Amino acid sequence: MLLADLTLVSPENGTDCGVVPDAAIAIADGRIVWAGPAADLPAAHNDLPRQSLGGRLVTPGLIDCHTHLVYGGDRAREFDMRLNGAGYEEIARAGGGILSTVRATRAATEAELLASTLTRADHLIAEGVTTVEIKSGYGLDIETELKMLRVARQIAQERPLRVVTTWLAAHALPPEFAADRTGYIDRVVIAGMEAAQAEGLIDAVDGFCEGIAFSAAEMDRIFAHAATLGLPVKLHAEQLSDLDGAALAARHGALSVDHLEWLSDSGIAALTASGTVAVMLPGAFYTLRETKLPPIAALRAAGVPMALATDSNPGTSPLTSALVTMNMGATLFRMTPTECLAGFTVNAARALGLADRGRIAAGQIADLAVWNITHPAELSYRIGFNPLHSRIFGGTPCPL
Amino acid sequence: MLLADLTLVSPENGTDCGVVPDAAIAIADGRIVWAGPAADLPAAHNDLPRQSLGGRLVTPGLIDCHTHLVYGGDRAREFDMRLNGAGYEEIARAGGGILSTVRATRAATEAELLASTLTRADHLIAEGVTTVEIKSGYGLDIETELKMLRVARQIAQERPLRVVTTWLAAHALPPEFAADRTGYIDRVVIAGMEAAQAEGLIDAVDGFCEGIAFSAAEMDRIFAHAATLGLPVKLHAEQLSDLDGAALAARHGALSVDHLEWLSDSGIAALTASGTVAVMLPGAFYTLRETKLPPIAALRAAGVPMALATDSNPGTSPLTSALVTMNMGATLFRMTPTECLAGFTVNAARALGLADRGRIAAGQIADLAVWNITHPAELSYRIGFNPLHSRIFGGTPCPL
Ligand SMILES: [Zn+2]
Ligand SMILES: [Zn+2]
Repeated sequence: MLLADLTLVSPENGTDCGVVPDAAIAIADGRIVWAGPAADLPAAHNDLPRQSLGGRLVTPGLIDCHTHLVYGGDRAREFDMRLNGAGYEEIARAGGGILSTVRATRAATEAELLASTLTRADHLIAEGVTTVEIKSGYGLDIETELKMLRVARQIAQERPLRVVTTWLAAHALPPEFAADRTGYIDRVVIAGMEAAQAEGLIDAVDGFCEGIAFSAAEMDRIFAHAATLGLPVKLHAEQLSDLDGAALAARHGALSVDHLEWLSDSGIAALTASGTVAVMLPGAFYTLRETKLPPIAALRAAGVPMALATDSNPGTSPLTSALVTMNMGATLFRMTPTECLAGFTVNAARALGLADRGRIAAGQIADLAVWNITHPAELSYRIGFNPLHSRIFGGTPCPL
Repeated sequence: MLLADLTLVSPENGTDCGVVPDAAIAIADGRIVWAGPAADLPAAHNDLPRQSLGGRLVTPGLIDCHTHLVYGGDRAREFDMRLNGAGYEEIARAGGGILSTVRATRAATEAELLASTLTRADHLIAEGVTTVEIKSGYGLDIETELKMLRVARQIAQERPLRVVTTWLAAHALPPEFAADRTGYIDRVVIAGMEAAQAEGLIDAVDGFCEGIAFSAAEMDRIFAHAATLGLPVKLHAEQLSDLDGAALAARHGALSVDHLEWLSDSGIAALTASGTVAVMLPGAFYTLRETKLPPIAALRAAGVPMALATDSNPGTSPLTSALVTMNMGATLFRMTPTECLAGFTVNAARALGLADRGRIAAGQIADLAVWNITHPAELSYRIGFNPLHSRIFGGTPCPL
């Protein structure tokens, strides 16, 4: 297939949107075989069946590189209680908080989890997402963590969407291990990691490094085990305080560190040295009404690649819109529109360790998003507006 | 028609969501003739053709009571420039700011304005909006202001959507009157108001009372003229500073005062006395990264009815989502989910001076929104998620 009559937009980094007007994209066997100015199209591709995109703007399919999309229940009642003045203790007594999601996720069948996750995945798809990362972390026991990841893998069978999975048993300490942190790490986080790996369920290992979750020393041990299994790592770090999690993750060659509101200069230096991607999650910043901004300008100056993701989760970021996230990245974090787009394409792919997507270039998987816009900044400028015309998934057009 | 198998949700105010489980709604000639618990359905309505809503939740159709939906161009490039470090002066030199929208709106044909406005209206419709208020204010000359309002009226011909129009020539002073404020008010704001009234184009008169726009004394004169034409008034007040605009508007019996971040206690007292609705516009607060919150708790304590609206406009609130606005009302302004829903239904109708919509009760126009949710708080809890099942417009089901 030859896509013609389009403006190609594919940033290689956060500084240049990579706009090619009057472009063409040649696709064969689900891969891009050539992309560039139509005038330069090699004769070899001239015979491909031609599809005009009517002058529309074409970006790589969006990649949401940090989500907790699979979970049971929701937290709408807790949201309601809090806004009616209930404190955390009262909400906890009423069964709220992350443990309410753990209970609901443990209680749900795979079919129930699949159905509720699909409604959320469909919203991402409707905005041009073609790859989504999904973490475990609401089971906190091996059985439920594996169930979550099976559901995550199943999403890719049910929808034209690629799914990357992450082992996040180190998300919170469940009450049954309150007096035995080491036991939880050994018997659930590490033992479960091996079981998940054996079942082919995980692509990376993650953790929540924070006072209320796991320490840098605990994460160090978990990451060391991931290395023995050949699994790459990433980390929720420096969200609510600075525990030097980014530097720890960088020492383990992490693909990404995520959140980073409290990231220090030494943390930035560590990321620069390791080539780790900094993943910005403005949905959680917004929902928690945080005021400490991540050091965007310093990351930019240091040349650390920045990604951007929904962090879709029921508690701190009940957000299922890549485009609203891009607006938040610009409005709240002062990322440029180009950084926001790179954050959902080339840098998101890098945060997942994937070299085969996130760019419009020969050899890449032909996952594309086609937009009814004329300037790439329109993607982050508007709030609650979806100009997607269609997606192309593995070379196959998917009309809305 | 008899709508059955539904949960009715219709707040009369911000404190009670008005939930009726196992409810029914009888509709005849486009109006609700009865609504309540199905068990109490009068025998007279038993023969109406029955439509099951599968246990779904039904609210009044949403009412967006403050928008600037009609405009030419967009400000995406300006957004891009600003995030790349350009200051206001540089942006103004490059032709940005509100005057760029004025230029684009003056230059656009009615057909062009209609086409671009419809894409925005369609997003509101897709989220359950059945009535939208649309202001003039990007013409700043009589001809263009009237053109905007003709386009606004036209929207209601093109889509199943009710449109209420507002005369907002007192939005900004155009450069050609920079040295003649009185001339602008006399020859454009007031003369145009009469022309618009004669053409049946306006339902109310509005103004922007702010240091950068019009003074309270200037608005006083404009409102006095509106009174001679029998037109109700409303005011953009106390957004960036406290000019006592709310009290001025209250003295004129205003339907609403809008924005109100800087509203004083005496302003609240004036609203209480006049029964004026306070319209919250969190999209502008968010986009401008304001930090001064409107006095929600004090308004609540004083019993001032609060509405909530998108303020959809190209500069300070490029927002076309009622649901994102509800989330912002809750997350940023700490309005309760019930207040957010009342703000887009009963209190929004009141802000427009309309007694025939915004509630599910006998005599009301049968404009309804049907939702795939189980708890009303889900409408404000999620971000970038649209659980609308369908709308019912004047008694006619409109599937998505
Ligand atoms: Zn997360
Ligand atoms: Zn306004």
